[in-house]
Amino acid sequence: MFKRVLIANRGEIAVRIIRALREMQIESVAVYSTADRDSLYVQLADIAVCIGGPQPADSYLNIQNIVSAAVLSGADAIHPGFGFLSENVEFARICEECGLVFIGPKADTIELMGNKSNARDTMKKHGISVIPGSEEAVTSVDAALQVADEIGYPVMLKAAAGGGGKGIRVINSAEDLRQKFSDAQHETKLSFDDDSMYLEKVIENPKHIEVQVMRDVFGNVLAFPERDCSLQREHQKMVEESPCSLINTQERQALLAQAAKAANEIDYLNTGTFEFLMDSQHHFYFMEMNTRLQVEHPVTEMVTGLDLVKMQIHVAAGEALRLQQKDIHIYGSAIECRINAEDPRHNFMPQAGLIKKIHFPLGCPGARIDSGVDSGSRIPPFYDSMIAKLIAHGKDRPEALSVMDRMLTEMSIDGVKTNLDYQRDLMHAPAVVQDSSTTDYIEKEFLPLWKQQLTEKEAS
Amino acid sequence: MFKRVLIANRGEIAVRIIRALREMQIESVAVYSTADRDSLYVQLADIAVCIGGPQPADSYLNIQNIVSAAVLSGADAIHPGFGFLSENVEFARICEECGLVFIGPKADTIELMGNKSNARDTMKKHGISVIPGSEEAVTSVDAALQVADEIGYPVMLKAAAGGGGKGIRVINSAEDLRQKFSDAQHETKLSFDDDSMYLEKVIENPKHIEVQVMRDVFGNVLAFPERDCSLQREHQKMVEESPCSLINTQERQALLAQAAKAANEIDYLNTGTFEFLMDSQHHFYFMEMNTRLQVEHPVTEMVTGLDLVKMQIHVAAGEALRLQQKDIHIYGSAIECRINAEDPRHNFMPQAGLIKKIHFPLGCPGARIDSGVDSGSRIPPFYDSMIAKLIAHGKDRPEALSVMDRMLTEMSIDGVKTNLDYQRDLMHAPAVVQDSSTTDYIEKEFLPLWKQQLTEKEAS
Repeated sequence: MFKRVLIANRGEIAVRIIRALREMQIESVAVYSTADRDSLYVQLADIAVCIGGPQPADSYLNIQNIVSAAVLSGADAIHPGFGFLSENVEFARICEECGLVFIGPKADTIELMGNKSNARDTMKKHGISVIPGSEEAVTSVDAALQVADEIGYPVMLKAAAGGGGKGIRVINSAEDLRQKFSDAQHETKLSFDDDSMYLEKVIENPKHIEVQVMRDVFGNVLAFPERDCSLQREHQKMVEESPCSLINTQERQALLAQAAKAANEIDYLNTGTFEFLMDSQHHFYFMEMNTRLQVEHPVTEMVTGLDLVKMQIHVAAGEALRLQQKDIHIYGSAIECRINAEDPRHNFMPQAGLIKKIHFPLGCPGARIDSGVDSGSRIPPFYDSMIAKLIAHGKDRPEALSVMDRMLTEMSIDGVKTNLDYQRDLMHAPAVVQDSSTTDYIEKEFLPLWKQQLTEKEAS
Repeated sequence: MFKRVLIANRGEIAVRIIRALREMQIESVAVYSTADRDSLYVQLADIAVCIGGPQPADSYLNIQNIVSAAVLSGADAIHPGFGFLSENVEFARICEECGLVFIGPKADTIELMGNKSNARDTMKKHGISVIPGSEEAVTSVDAALQVADEIGYPVMLKAAAGGGGKGIRVINSAEDLRQKFSDAQHETKLSFDDDSMYLEKVIENPKHIEVQVMRDVFGNVLAFPERDCSLQREHQKMVEESPCSLINTQERQALLAQAAKAANEIDYLNTGTFEFLMDSQHHFYFMEMNTRLQVEHPVTEMVTGLDLVKMQIHVAAGEALRLQQKDIHIYGSAIECRINAEDPRHNFMPQAGLIKKIHFPLGCPGARIDSGVDSGSRIPPFYDSMIAKLIAHGKDRPEALSVMDRMLTEMSIDGVKTNLDYQRDLMHAPAVVQDSSTTDYIEKEFLPLWKQQLTEKEAS
């Protein structure tokens, strides 16, 4: 087993990993930017090394400084956490070359699955459903009409060459396509100097469903019960839960078997997550893979009783998984709310500053809090606004929701604005209580109503 | 279901009950002495009522004031917690008479089992092994000498009326008994206003094993996996765990069946715990019953996945238990350390004062903290020194111990002396790691060595 592990990350996830390492009697090395000098995770680590200035490029994305810190501190492995360098091929490759164990998949796998188009082709090759779309770029309206006929309307028209929403149109019929194609193509040409277009089927009112897997060097694989991460704002997950109450046992078995098979086919190592869209008929379409631990891993831990970070470390050290798929059970239901330093009343503007006092809603069997901050912590303005996660576990979904409501109501943070009350209001939304939310629920339904109610409250 | 429940208690257990009530959407009424005006539990409750001065007799033992507070605040039930009035027959009876549901057994049951001698006779009658001892309460040294002669030395001298270690003496000979009897009787009289004493045979090197039960008004009964509470100092439990690693499945089934049978025989209602001594041959001797929730209930919650406080409230409201004995499983292993405001270096002297800052070792799947205090809390000098409980859960006992070690190492409390480092040292003791400790381990082996090492450290 490792003697000393460097955590190439900060904040909440750094704290989480340091705690797991301590429980495994492994020393932890924290790296920090000058803005994080007094952070909780720096205080908790056995060793702490400053790796540069506040800007991520100077510190948490500075491969050379991080690798140097690992070598100089005598670390034998690196945990990348999530975000920053966790899916960076070059970083994983340099770790491998320097004899540092990268706690994650091989660099080649990160490269393969990091490209969305390659990932999609790879999954399709191995028999996993992907969102139906054009096999090749189309440049004429006739070619587009033919593809659209095959996959069925509505379809999404996209620029093949780029992203950022350029050229994107939702098309409901052949006539619609004839009308909008040339305009979209023109916009695409202007933006990317390339007029190739790409079509894919629109999955209506989908749920975001994902399956985390863990695979060891011997090829043993586990697929964990699915997570439902449909509550998103601007494609950012805000609330995640497990299992999905709409999926029955047979569907779950099939989905998990598919994820396990995919992990085997690409010779995956360590943990990663296959993300799917689920339509109203419960068809699953592969979207992309996250080749790392995810923010929402605690809900899986609560319903399975496993410690996925410890498991990652065992697997990275070359140990075989001790469990088999038949040992994975679902105990009750769990839900996670991300607590962000942001102002939901002003377009979720990220907040920085000093947390004068924080009260944690501890206690009772189902309450778990993973926090990167404590009373007296200072939130720097340079990084992601997520400062803590509340995780509630209950014998069933209603109990998990009631535990979460209690935690959100009880928690208080003085000194910095957060999304605590927004999240509490969201927990009371009918679509959340009844579990009928889809990926556009927050933006299309919840937020407009929430803002309206705020305005009314302020007016009265 | 109840609309509003009054908690006739303070501190950590009041916080625990308020949280459960909130998760059940039931309003909570806290009662407080003038010394507890700013306590965390008072802040968390929906309604708070001052019931008198700092001395327990004026407030938390003041039946009239508590019942008045319940009636005036419109509470329909009272949760007594543990300690204070939780096993007070008069209190339970007055609640019954005032139409307030007492969340616990019937007053008659408290009376029957609250008297150790009656409890012992009752258990004996129903075929449960008891520790050989006096058939009746004794009030004179001559009567005591006669009983001791019959059962053989060493014997244990106890208060017939109460618990909490008051009046307890180990007696090795007739001469010893003559010397210590009046002193013990005096202490008993002061504590319980009753000078009846009780003698029983000393079981040598025993483990303290206890079984908590839950029984509803329909006679459905559950017996939960045993707890091992052998780590005690002056008959006060300091560390508790579940299950006991020395007990095999067959022994467990027999023990739990015995506890369930006993609960049925006495028509027990709500939760209570049968306490046994286990000798080296794994014979169990009934000692006494606690007719209430216990401090150590969280370890049972962690290994069973149940919320025993919520279950108490459902049962008190007349609902049937939703589980059967076959639904009770053991998931891994859990251990609890009581965190006391006391100075282990100076004979565990209770401490009072202001907690300037407290850092809670949250996060990771197995960590639970039930605390009655937070940063800025003031600990009054009038009450029990327990301020928080750390509960660690793991897939097996070694993992639970490693989680506990991490929590004890990470936790910090500034401003008031606590037993944190003492508990951490205890977790590293060979007898704890190997699970060979018995009820006298702390006093006979651990503490002398610990004090010696302290002296050596201070000298060097």
